[in-house]
Amino acid sequence: MNGTSDRRQRLEDLAERLGVDAILLGSPASVTWQTGFANALEMGESPFELPPLGLWLADRGMFAIVSADAEPALDVEPVEIVTYPGFGLEDPDPAEAAARIVADLAGDRRIAVESGRVPAVVADRLDGIDVSYELARLRAVKDPDEIEAIQSALALCDVGQAAARSLAKPGLGEIELWAGIRLAMENAAGDRLPIIADLVSGNRTAEVGGPPGSGSLPANGPILCDLVPRLNGYWGDSCATFWVGDDPDQAFLETHARVREALDRTVAAIAPGAVPEDLDRLARETLDFPHHTGHGLGTLWHEWPRVVPEARAPLEENMVLALEPGVYEGGFGVRLEQVVLVGADGPEILSGHDLGALVS
Amino acid sequence: MNGTSDRRQRLEDLAERLGVDAILLGSPASVTWQTGFANALEMGESPFELPPLGLWLADRGMFAIVSADAEPALDVEPVEIVTYPGFGLEDPDPAEAAARIVADLAGDRRIAVESGRVPAVVADRLDGIDVSYELARLRAVKDPDEIEAIQSALALCDVGQAAARSLAKPGLGEIELWAGIRLAMENAAGDRLPIIADLVSGNRTAEVGGPPGSGSLPANGPILCDLVPRLNGYWGDSCATFWVGDDPDQAFLETHARVREALDRTVAAIAPGAVPEDLDRLARETLDFPHHTGHGLGTLWHEWPRVVPEARAPLEENMVLALEPGVYEGGFGVRLEQVVLVGADGPEILSGHDLGALVS
Repeated sequence: MNGTSDRRQRLEDLAERLGVDAILLGSPASVTWQTGFANALEMGESPFELPPLGLWLADRGMFAIVSADAEPALDVEPVEIVTYPGFGLEDPDPAEAAARIVADLAGDRRIAVESGRVPAVVADRLDGIDVSYELARLRAVKDPDEIEAIQSALALCDVGQAAARSLAKPGLGEIELWAGIRLAMENAAGDRLPIIADLVSGNRTAEVGGPPGSGSLPANGPILCDLVPRLNGYWGDSCATFWVGDDPDQAFLETHARVREALDRTVAAIAPGAVPEDLDRLARETLDFPHHTGHGLGTLWHEWPRVVPEARAPLEENMVLALEPGVYEGGFGVRLEQVVLVGADGPEILSGHDLGALVS
Repeated sequence: MNGTSDRRQRLEDLAERLGVDAILLGSPASVTWQTGFANALEMGESPFELPPLGLWLADRGMFAIVSADAEPALDVEPVEIVTYPGFGLEDPDPAEAAARIVADLAGDRRIAVESGRVPAVVADRLDGIDVSYELARLRAVKDPDEIEAIQSALALCDVGQAAARSLAKPGLGEIELWAGIRLAMENAAGDRLPIIADLVSGNRTAEVGGPPGSGSLPANGPILCDLVPRLNGYWGDSCATFWVGDDPDQAFLETHARVREALDRTVAAIAPGAVPEDLDRLARETLDFPHHTGHGLGTLWHEWPRVVPEARAPLEENMVLALEPGVYEGGFGVRLEQVVLVGADGPEILSGHDLGALVS
């Protein structure tokens, strides 16, 4: 990107509204959003680095405070990168190092802090107000490069969903199926990926979700496959439910059609100004399910806006929503999910995977 | 476990030394160590939960503050579990919810806080001293159930290393090989696993490490495979380097033998009272490499003690060390790693994988 992005502008507007001239970002989702840095998920806690921090100063712009080993996932400009030592022989103290950098940069500016995630040792040296709530909402409207990043992650969902259908066979282990799906997605990306997944078969589909287990696919029964990969800091999301075996259950086919109809109806109602609680009610008109109807998607796998009862803030253009109504009764579950851009003229479906009730 | 474990006792001793009657644990490694709760790594940040917190009160014992969706990875008793709402339809604010629970429980006790990781919104309501440094060192000596957990994770390393040798063939994609290794390990665990891995072949072995890439294994060349899985909150670690193809390079074989000899020599010197900097010097007598000689292993993949220059605190019985000398020169790299328990009478090698220079 060149120049200041729309999302940077929205952050600056927030600062003005709050009367501060600095904002410290600490949640990984906010930091990726404003700096392009994303933490390596599968490593978990590291003795050599904190998750990246972002510090915006009204007069100097955005800084990413990261270990020397970190590399940006997405090119977000302008960002100035300030590093502390990473992996090495010296005794590491990344929290202290990051705290010192932030305190030096922030000086005595009036500051707002994402206190829900910023470590205490960093925030302690600042006298800031908590801005966690506002930032989570501010991330909801997407810039063009963010929509592109989500589309790339969704393309991997499509690859994974296609692999699930082509590989699923009665008797195959759930973990084997999972390995094949993951391989297809990682081969398409040319890299390892963080992937969250529900992958359950048979009666376990009635449990809404869960990881692939040590059991095998039924000779004749449903598979519920919800794939959520992160690529370059942005998440994709997708769910399909389909029947494996030659004798599909009539109740399954009927439920599947009912869920599909509810999904289509809810997707069709998406537009700027639509109210999430109304979308939620629309999905539940013909279905009964225990979870949300949908959620925002971006640098976090579940963002605002949430499509749930009592969610009243209207949708805005360029929000991205994952919609996933379902039914879990009669010994099996069906959930179908598509990701949709709130376009100026209505819904633009970004997901490309097969939603069909039969394996192929 | 029944009653108060040795590690709980060490925490109580620390509190006495510091003159506090409460300690708030916030780094995932410390929380797993004292409560058995481990966060789901591949999901990254969640809008529905903070990483688990641990709060120890001198007069009431240990509390785990977790979302209602959390389940302990390891059975660590006694721990009282206090939950806030998890995934659901209500608007989530896990940081605020956890902060309130911690503040209510801690009351006006004198408290020490792992400020390097505890979110500011939680620590802000406490007037605590920072205890991050002490906790990282305190975790180094392991209890019997911790050693068992590490052994279980190492058994998965052995499975993965064996799979790497049996699957590696000239021309196979690195990502394909990785998928096969991961599948073998996840099948052995009966579950998905977080796994950190270096998996590089050919010239890339000279770069110390890196993830599997979109390239393929050479017709004739080395593979460096470093597998680091987490099982029930505890990490295993293992590295082997071996030749694929019919015509092993003489320089590779000689370097491999030199690294093996240095590893064996360093392992043999492990005992209570041995000084890490001396072990480090021992490994470097015949080798030149840019990284540590080794590190502790437990609820974090790289813990104290570190086997590096100037590390002077002597080893203690029941520490667990990963030793991994290497050489990266002449266009290829070799690293060999074993995990060793500091036994009363000397080293007890916990790793069981093949270290040989040839694929089989």
